[in-house]
Amino acid sequence: MTEKQFPDQIILAQGNGGRFMRELIEDVFFQSFGNEDATQANDAAFIETGSEGIFTTTDGFTVQPLEFPGGDLGSLAVHGTVNDLAVAGALPRWLTLSVILEEGLSFHTLKRMVQSFAEAAKKSGVSVVAGDTKVVPRGSGGGAYFSVSGIGTPARKGLGFSQIKAGDKILISGTIGDHGTAVMLAREEFGLKSEILSDSTSVINLCKLLWPLEGLRFLRDPTRGGLATVAHEICSATSLGVRLDETSIPVQNAVTSVCEILGYDPFYLACEGRLVAVVSPTEADTALSRLQECTDGQRAAIIGTITPDTQHVVLETEIGGERILEELEDDPLPRIC
Amino acid sequence: MTEKQFPDQIILAQGNGGRFMRELIEDVFFQSFGNEDATQANDAAFIETGSEGIFTTTDGFTVQPLEFPGGDLGSLAVHGTVNDLAVAGALPRWLTLSVILEEGLSFHTLKRMVQSFAEAAKKSGVSVVAGDTKVVPRGSGGGAYFSVSGIGTPARKGLGFSQIKAGDKILISGTIGDHGTAVMLAREEFGLKSEILSDSTSVINLCKLLWPLEGLRFLRDPTRGGLATVAHEICSATSLGVRLDETSIPVQNAVTSVCEILGYDPFYLACEGRLVAVVSPTEADTALSRLQECTDGQRAAIIGTITPDTQHVVLETEIGGERILEELEDDPLPRIC
Repeated sequence: MTEKQFPDQIILAQGNGGRFMRELIEDVFFQSFGNEDATQANDAAFIETGSEGIFTTTDGFTVQPLEFPGGDLGSLAVHGTVNDLAVAGALPRWLTLSVILEEGLSFHTLKRMVQSFAEAAKKSGVSVVAGDTKVVPRGSGGGAYFSVSGIGTPARKGLGFSQIKAGDKILISGTIGDHGTAVMLAREEFGLKSEILSDSTSVINLCKLLWPLEGLRFLRDPTRGGLATVAHEICSATSLGVRLDETSIPVQNAVTSVCEILGYDPFYLACEGRLVAVVSPTEADTALSRLQECTDGQRAAIIGTITPDTQHVVLETEIGGERILEELEDDPLPRIC
Repeated sequence: MTEKQFPDQIILAQGNGGRFMRELIEDVFFQSFGNEDATQANDAAFIETGSEGIFTTTDGFTVQPLEFPGGDLGSLAVHGTVNDLAVAGALPRWLTLSVILEEGLSFHTLKRMVQSFAEAAKKSGVSVVAGDTKVVPRGSGGGAYFSVSGIGTPARKGLGFSQIKAGDKILISGTIGDHGTAVMLAREEFGLKSEILSDSTSVINLCKLLWPLEGLRFLRDPTRGGLATVAHEICSATSLGVRLDETSIPVQNAVTSVCEILGYDPFYLACEGRLVAVVSPTEADTALSRLQECTDGQRAAIIGTITPDTQHVVLETEIGGERILEELEDDPLPRIC
């Protein structure tokens, strides 16, 4: 076991989806809980119960600002949760919502976010079956936090890291970094304005199009830590490598510009409505055309390959060079989701 | 419909379990979600899936201080969740945990709370199957919040408000107000010291003893808003009355003293390991002796009766008078659970 030096106090980067978060979860949560289910680092856990079993997942949403171009805390919380179920091969069915409100939050903001939660749930085909409301004193709540749990029923078995093979193709369903950039600019810290909207949406329909493909190995939604973090998770779980082709990865021009100005890397920025799929080489083109049939998948692309040789994430750059995408350490953007 | 005046901003009393919270939930959440399940005001929702169905519940825990005599955020979060399932007639089986940490939280405090969560889960017979960790910037997190969802399988059908009849007896499994008082004193705002421990514990074993009784109508754990709030929920759901006998309600002397000094009313203080049971008059004595068999039920008592006449909660006082226990309005103790 590698020796880790934990700081005495929790730091922001322990919530960013990267290395510090992985180490915190391994050392604090997995050591205490110790059960296999919790340690598989999957988006949703399978529970054997009843005739066919269920999948469950949970996520806390702390985005700041609470409302941003293309979404808000409410819709984001629904999409984040149903997407975790869908990429695990489950049909999302039911949600529970635990709300922590800060004293002084605008009543109308709350009402809009809850309405937005309800609409996103309806559109995603899930029912909200239980809830809880707590109010914390002014100065201890960041406005509002929504923690959501989702329950789904098995729809596509046999997906997971263990199915991934060298030679498989990697697909993305659309442009990357839109959510991260939209939220960052909405904070108005940088004095930049743009028309960039968050990509926050449900990926259930995209998953439904891919589930029937026999060559579908693995699905993931690249949220915190972005595409690079999903690629790292694949390497670490499979001991294979990931080779990405920069020119084929769809990025909006406006996102590229903002990232260049502010020094961010779109490969690490959160998406909240995109799908990363690993598909056998023989079915990659079919998968691509199925994604492109969908409005949300029009900019889908085959962006890379699983390689046998290394555990690295290698980016073939536009100018023909190679760049190693390291595991995320510092938190580029706290409270992005 | 009664006309309600909502303040423009969220106030603490909207999280206290009483009238303001009920109105907020009705007007914001139920109006948006609109489905029956969410509007039944039960501790846990039944979901038809698989061969026998499941129960699910969710709760956010924001207690301050994070550690207090008799428990901490971790154990409290487990007990609060498994108890909500057990009183609904479900055997608690699986938990998910969404953790929102504030930058600067002591790493060792976190580790103790997570260990405490794991131990309470093990003792309660539930597995932790999924989790999520977010970190929010200093000043926006109150240290740590745990939101927990629980899933259970049906164990005792036919419990609920609709089963309650006039003449039924009301039982409590132990002393009231211990948790509220222990947490309040742990804040050290009042300069009072005591040996009072929180009653935070699982009520699963108590429920298991009562489930086989045919005359068992209804179970509830009196958390936020305490015994008086459960009594109000019964009145409001059944259109019957509740008559409580003050002399038979077990209250620790130390709790009575603290409440007298600080002007609190133990009937409204949170318990986190007590059970309120409504039982047919013919089986009330059997229920009582079953509770008293248990270590956690030694101070169990029959404390009142369901009355046909009113929708009020009437307390027969020690001195022979009567006092109406009104629905809770102001928040006596924010962040008690």
